[in-house]
Amino acid sequence: MPKDIESKLSRSAKSMKRSAIREILKLLQNPEMISFAGGLPSPESFPVEEVKDISKSILENQGAAALQYGTTEGDPLLREMILKRHSDQGLEAAQENLAISTGSQQALDILSKIFIDPGDVIICGLPSYLGGLSSFNVYGAKPEGIPFDEHGMRVDLLREKIEKLVAGGEKIKFIYVIPDFQNPAGITMPESRRKEILKIADEFDLLVLEDSPYRDIRFEGKTQKLMYEMDQSGRVITLFTFSKIFAPGFRLAWLLADPLIIDKFIMAKQSADICSPVFVQKIAAEYMNRGLLDKNLGKTIELYRSRRDHMLECFNKYMPEGVSWTKPEGGLFLFLKLPEEMNADEVFDLAVKNNVAFVKGSVFHCNDCGKNTMRINFSYCSKETITTGIKRLSGVISDYMKMH
Amino acid sequence: MPKDIESKLSRSAKSMKRSAIREILKLLQNPEMISFAGGLPSPESFPVEEVKDISKSILENQGAAALQYGTTEGDPLLREMILKRHSDQGLEAAQENLAISTGSQQALDILSKIFIDPGDVIICGLPSYLGGLSSFNVYGAKPEGIPFDEHGMRVDLLREKIEKLVAGGEKIKFIYVIPDFQNPAGITMPESRRKEILKIADEFDLLVLEDSPYRDIRFEGKTQKLMYEMDQSGRVITLFTFSKIFAPGFRLAWLLADPLIIDKFIMAKQSADICSPVFVQKIAAEYMNRGLLDKNLGKTIELYRSRRDHMLECFNKYMPEGVSWTKPEGGLFLFLKLPEEMNADEVFDLAVKNNVAFVKGSVFHCNDCGKNTMRINFSYCSKETITTGIKRLSGVISDYMKMH
Repeated sequence: MPKDIESKLSRSAKSMKRSAIREILKLLQNPEMISFAGGLPSPESFPVEEVKDISKSILENQGAAALQYGTTEGDPLLREMILKRHSDQGLEAAQENLAISTGSQQALDILSKIFIDPGDVIICGLPSYLGGLSSFNVYGAKPEGIPFDEHGMRVDLLREKIEKLVAGGEKIKFIYVIPDFQNPAGITMPESRRKEILKIADEFDLLVLEDSPYRDIRFEGKTQKLMYEMDQSGRVITLFTFSKIFAPGFRLAWLLADPLIIDKFIMAKQSADICSPVFVQKIAAEYMNRGLLDKNLGKTIELYRSRRDHMLECFNKYMPEGVSWTKPEGGLFLFLKLPEEMNADEVFDLAVKNNVAFVKGSVFHCNDCGKNTMRINFSYCSKETITTGIKRLSGVISDYMKMH
Repeated sequence: MPKDIESKLSRSAKSMKRSAIREILKLLQNPEMISFAGGLPSPESFPVEEVKDISKSILENQGAAALQYGTTEGDPLLREMILKRHSDQGLEAAQENLAISTGSQQALDILSKIFIDPGDVIICGLPSYLGGLSSFNVYGAKPEGIPFDEHGMRVDLLREKIEKLVAGGEKIKFIYVIPDFQNPAGITMPESRRKEILKIADEFDLLVLEDSPYRDIRFEGKTQKLMYEMDQSGRVITLFTFSKIFAPGFRLAWLLADPLIIDKFIMAKQSADICSPVFVQKIAAEYMNRGLLDKNLGKTIELYRSRRDHMLECFNKYMPEGVSWTKPEGGLFLFLKLPEEMNADEVFDLAVKNNVAFVKGSVFHCNDCGKNTMRINFSYCSKETITTGIKRLSGVISDYMKMH
């Protein structure tokens, strides 16, 4: 019998699409292309010399352990260093609240696996991080989006939506939020807003999935408490990552949650990849142990702040009338809005022809809206490249606006 | 409202159990314990000095790239080296047939995700690798087990089972096989048996998931063709790993399959972990590029062969009458059978009290059989430890048999 692969795919595989962002990364292979698309840290932020020294020392002192399988829970020293750093920042968490994951994307995948049955509802922002939406989608979730105001998810609309869903008999599993320098919107929720959302979660007994990859990269303003810190009842799960503050190529992240959730997480991780890569866990642990994480982080923040400032200047100088953008207090992205009736998908095609790329805002909207929005990364390119790229992009947008 | 986490778990999370093998690894924390339980390579097989030298060179020459995100498909040089090695061994595969995974366990998880809907049938051996069974279970598969003879899965029973399942309207997705030095049974399927199974897969249009982690660790006898090499219609997916021939702590493996399957695999991997760890991919690539993989493999094979021989000698010397075992031509495990009416679960409890551990054979049986079987690893312990451990284990089994 000739093979028939299509008919053998699972329902979720049939609906899978290639990630818009990953596909755009391929555009970078064209050396003329200036890409503001990826969420890549700047290579200048990578502590290559320190990693070289630490690698050597680990292979000399614990080489066999670094090449062997590790526990699913994660490297003991790495776990200790993470909890110590949280404690130094005023967040007390126990060993049983912590799990290491192979990047935050794995945490999103595993948490979707352990909470979502097909047809379950998850609540997210309009817009929301695409990688989160993809993971929820794989497990058959129905995403319901809540519009933003300048402080993030609107609480009135959140309550209204939940009441309607509950009345309709829908099973809501969690609210997905990115409180600091939201990806893609660049918005930071003040503590008051976080409290209001947590209150609603309490009232309706919902979990909160708090995704916090950029929290440490704050340029200005006061650090806002994590929802995890405000939570009295163990319903908040918070994701952290080394990808934006150390090295994404190590694929290392962690999460804090209620011990019951961590326990299920570890079980699911056993059959997902047994353990996260051990050698690089040991490198990350020693990097923290030597006090290098926070030392180098200061330089990264300086670098990204100056690039954000420069990008905002370029926007002010070159963007045509009618275009607006967020001014994020930290993170890697800002969000650009064209006039309502404009279509960023069409702008994208023109932009790529002119060797400049961004991510279409529509991919971050679970309800097919946001056609007039664009996500722009400011961490990866040098100031010179930002100038050239934003000139190009502004030109493309001007031309497009004149044609419409 | 007080939180209620249990009611929020997905169906699959409710049925998840901690892996028996991973839990047994914790026994190793007792320094008196001799464990034949894990599937750990010997630390003596790890090329620590070579990795030290290569790490240094990578961080000096391509440090930023090693710390940055990589493509989901995997490091280009690593992909090239893998295809070249296959080609040198007579297996021609194209770039589009290849994907890198974060250990074979990730490949098992992702392939389950893209093929299994709840209620779908997968066919496996009695016994079969526990990590495979766990992954299938997470996605709601109904496993159907086929008994073995001395050459592996019995073809008459396989055909009978498939005919019955098809007649009953069941949807069978794939046949899961471990043709070389099967885990846990230690049995190698001759080419003729592989051909017969492939013929049945052709006849009923089934996929074949060929798991091949130990293939390169052959002590004696002629290498048997992979089912992937015999397959004319692209229905065989084959998993390979660096965990048993290089460093499990790197979490690196790969698979070969039809391009359509690889394409879906990559999409699913994007939302599973974006990419496998980049720094260690580059180390593995350069390790192969310098010709070290096959050079060091020879030493590993010598080491494991001598340990297998020694363990078989100890079995012959110390095991009581009525106990039998397989004599594997390669790999890491042998399989021990107590008389039919004996219960290895009870032997396990006694053994642990006497500071020696193995894995109960029942966990590898999807039908709750195999109560009188045990999996014994011979790669990890030194000869001296093997002698002490097998003396202890034989004593425990003797005592147990006298009591029953």
